[in-house]
Amino acid sequence: MNNFNFCSPTYFAFGRGTESRAGELCVKYGAGRVLIVYGGGSAVRSGLLARVKERLDEARLWHTDLAGIKPNPTDDRVYEGIDVCRRERIDFILAVGGGSVIDTAKGIAAGAVYDGDFWDFYSGKAVPRSALPVGVVLTIPAAGSEGSGNTVITKVDGLHKISIRTEEVLRPRFAIMDPELTFTLPPFQTACGIADMMAHIMERYFSNTPGVEVSDRLCESVLTTIIGQAPIVMRSPDDYDARANIMWCGMIAHNGTCGVGREEDWSSHALEHEVSAVYDVAHGAGLAVIFPAWLTWMASHNPHKVAQFAGRVFGVEQLASPEATALEGVARLKAFFRSIGLPVTFAALGVANPDIDLLVRKLVEDKGQPIGNYVRLTPQDCREIYLLGCGD
Amino acid sequence: MNNFNFCSPTYFAFGRGTESRAGELCVKYGAGRVLIVYGGGSAVRSGLLARVKERLDEARLWHTDLAGIKPNPTDDRVYEGIDVCRRERIDFILAVGGGSVIDTAKGIAAGAVYDGDFWDFYSGKAVPRSALPVGVVLTIPAAGSEGSGNTVITKVDGLHKISIRTEEVLRPRFAIMDPELTFTLPPFQTACGIADMMAHIMERYFSNTPGVEVSDRLCESVLTTIIGQAPIVMRSPDDYDARANIMWCGMIAHNGTCGVGREEDWSSHALEHEVSAVYDVAHGAGLAVIFPAWLTWMASHNPHKVAQFAGRVFGVEQLASPEATALEGVARLKAFFRSIGLPVTFAALGVANPDIDLLVRKLVEDKGQPIGNYVRLTPQDCREIYLLGCGD
Repeated sequence: MNNFNFCSPTYFAFGRGTESRAGELCVKYGAGRVLIVYGGGSAVRSGLLARVKERLDEARLWHTDLAGIKPNPTDDRVYEGIDVCRRERIDFILAVGGGSVIDTAKGIAAGAVYDGDFWDFYSGKAVPRSALPVGVVLTIPAAGSEGSGNTVITKVDGLHKISIRTEEVLRPRFAIMDPELTFTLPPFQTACGIADMMAHIMERYFSNTPGVEVSDRLCESVLTTIIGQAPIVMRSPDDYDARANIMWCGMIAHNGTCGVGREEDWSSHALEHEVSAVYDVAHGAGLAVIFPAWLTWMASHNPHKVAQFAGRVFGVEQLASPEATALEGVARLKAFFRSIGLPVTFAALGVANPDIDLLVRKLVEDKGQPIGNYVRLTPQDCREIYLLGCGD
Repeated sequence: MNNFNFCSPTYFAFGRGTESRAGELCVKYGAGRVLIVYGGGSAVRSGLLARVKERLDEARLWHTDLAGIKPNPTDDRVYEGIDVCRRERIDFILAVGGGSVIDTAKGIAAGAVYDGDFWDFYSGKAVPRSALPVGVVLTIPAAGSEGSGNTVITKVDGLHKISIRTEEVLRPRFAIMDPELTFTLPPFQTACGIADMMAHIMERYFSNTPGVEVSDRLCESVLTTIIGQAPIVMRSPDDYDARANIMWCGMIAHNGTCGVGREEDWSSHALEHEVSAVYDVAHGAGLAVIFPAWLTWMASHNPHKVAQFAGRVFGVEQLASPEATALEGVARLKAFFRSIGLPVTFAALGVANPDIDLLVRKLVEDKGQPIGNYVRLTPQDCREIYLLGCGD
């Protein structure tokens, strides 16, 4: 086991009706003048936004809006938010939405207190040392941004989609998580969220670090839970307990609990970020294509952990070789993704002929090379993995 | 799943050599004048205490000592610590040791800023609203106090051993966890710690709350890890990875991760606290007697979760009845405890003829009645469970 630091200080208020605590929690964590960041569609239509604003009014908090944040959120909205913060002397940012909204809020929070260009944090020129406090009312369980110190933003100029991770600075102060808010999520979006949270666990799970039984087992327990609960939420979108389990799994998948003491990988995310940046597909759907392709490639290059995954998560018996066991595990994962309506090929993703040269070139530009840790991937390896995503 | 709040803000510095960060972390969390609380034996002999003091000196922190805290820590030492805090204007408490030391530090931390008698918090007359900040250098993985908001203190007058839980106030600001510090723990103490951390998970696991798959699976994953790593640490006390896994399991067992969204039980702890208060046995050893007795009683009164435990943690196949499956699980748990040198009967614990009348009478005095949630236990039920601990 490697040395590690772990600190997940976010206060989670979980369950039915917890959005009624939005005002109280903003006050507790120091809010006076609040920027509310949201997407627009369902948070407005469902009345959630209006209810949250009522609570802020009751708590005598001044507030203004930054609306219309879109999936695969972009730097232009972050710049806009930073301008609002400075103009309106904002001291707290409340994100009402899913990962795109929260990640935008985090970018604004770091940028608003920084003298330079906020993109410096994403380009690696600077590290955020402080930020405005961020609170969350979560509506989409997927990205895990409600409990993580991470944010992913796409630079419109060049479509560079970059993620950064901070130990503490960008972790939300509180996250309100009401599973009932997710009852109306469309099936495809629910499924994409499931793929995303599974990927967050698997990026940590596939590691060569020895002696990490506790985090191996924690990863497997959350994956097993997700795989068991997913068919229930797909079949019965208003099953409270299944929605609640999925929602908490999405948080625990990404707040660091599953990654302590181990080298992580993150090449599937890097490979996918180029796909969603270039083709504007849903990140979770892209992962459902890329992760099985990556695992297939790993089955013939470093199968041991893929075989363990197959056995412990999907109950595959040990076959003739670790590679065979691993490949059977990948087949089960693909079957699972298909069963909840996700694509597992580029064609099914709606990208009939991906420009693999472009994807690899952008990957090298954005992430350097090689990428990953479970096996260090050269650009040629990445090309092979993208090609595996074109198969069946 | 029940509504819940969860906040575990402690900063964990985990791994080899992390005790060298004691000064830096005390400063980060606001220390100026530090009370160092410790037991005395191994922390002094190993040189750990001297090294920690050196780091505090380097960080220019004034410090003084409260030494000689014993297992099953008592209120007299808490009063003494509170006096030192007031006399010396202490603003930070550093606990160097295991659960007894940390729990004493927490009692002092709450009492030092309270106008009344600190025992009010333990007797239920008052709730701690604030406390001095506490830091930890952990030497015994067992109680999980390094990550919890809990503390257990015994009132010498009447031998009342009482535990309290706070959501945030008494959680340590930081915990330094170096597995190498545990290499020299005697085998019996190692085994007692293992029983204690397993009990912390099982007190949460045995619950009738429906729809808690994620926390069920998290509990099972940590139990499975402990059961797998325990034989290694018993055989090879200086196996770093096994010690590291056990150490992290002890934290995650009790910081709340395993208990979210479910009604917990805690009657085995209540039953055991009377035993260790009256007979001054090691808490973990007492739990190795009481928990199997409690589970045996449950097998005939509410077997469903005990049968699930048997299947998922010990791999017991489903037998003719849930009761039979449950009992086979209890037999495996007892065999496991015996295999690491723990008693599973009062006689083996060194209490040949426990005064069960006295234990039940004190239990009713200290905890009221009924106790527990998985099945509500009357005094007569408790008597039956104590009697089961007298069997084989």
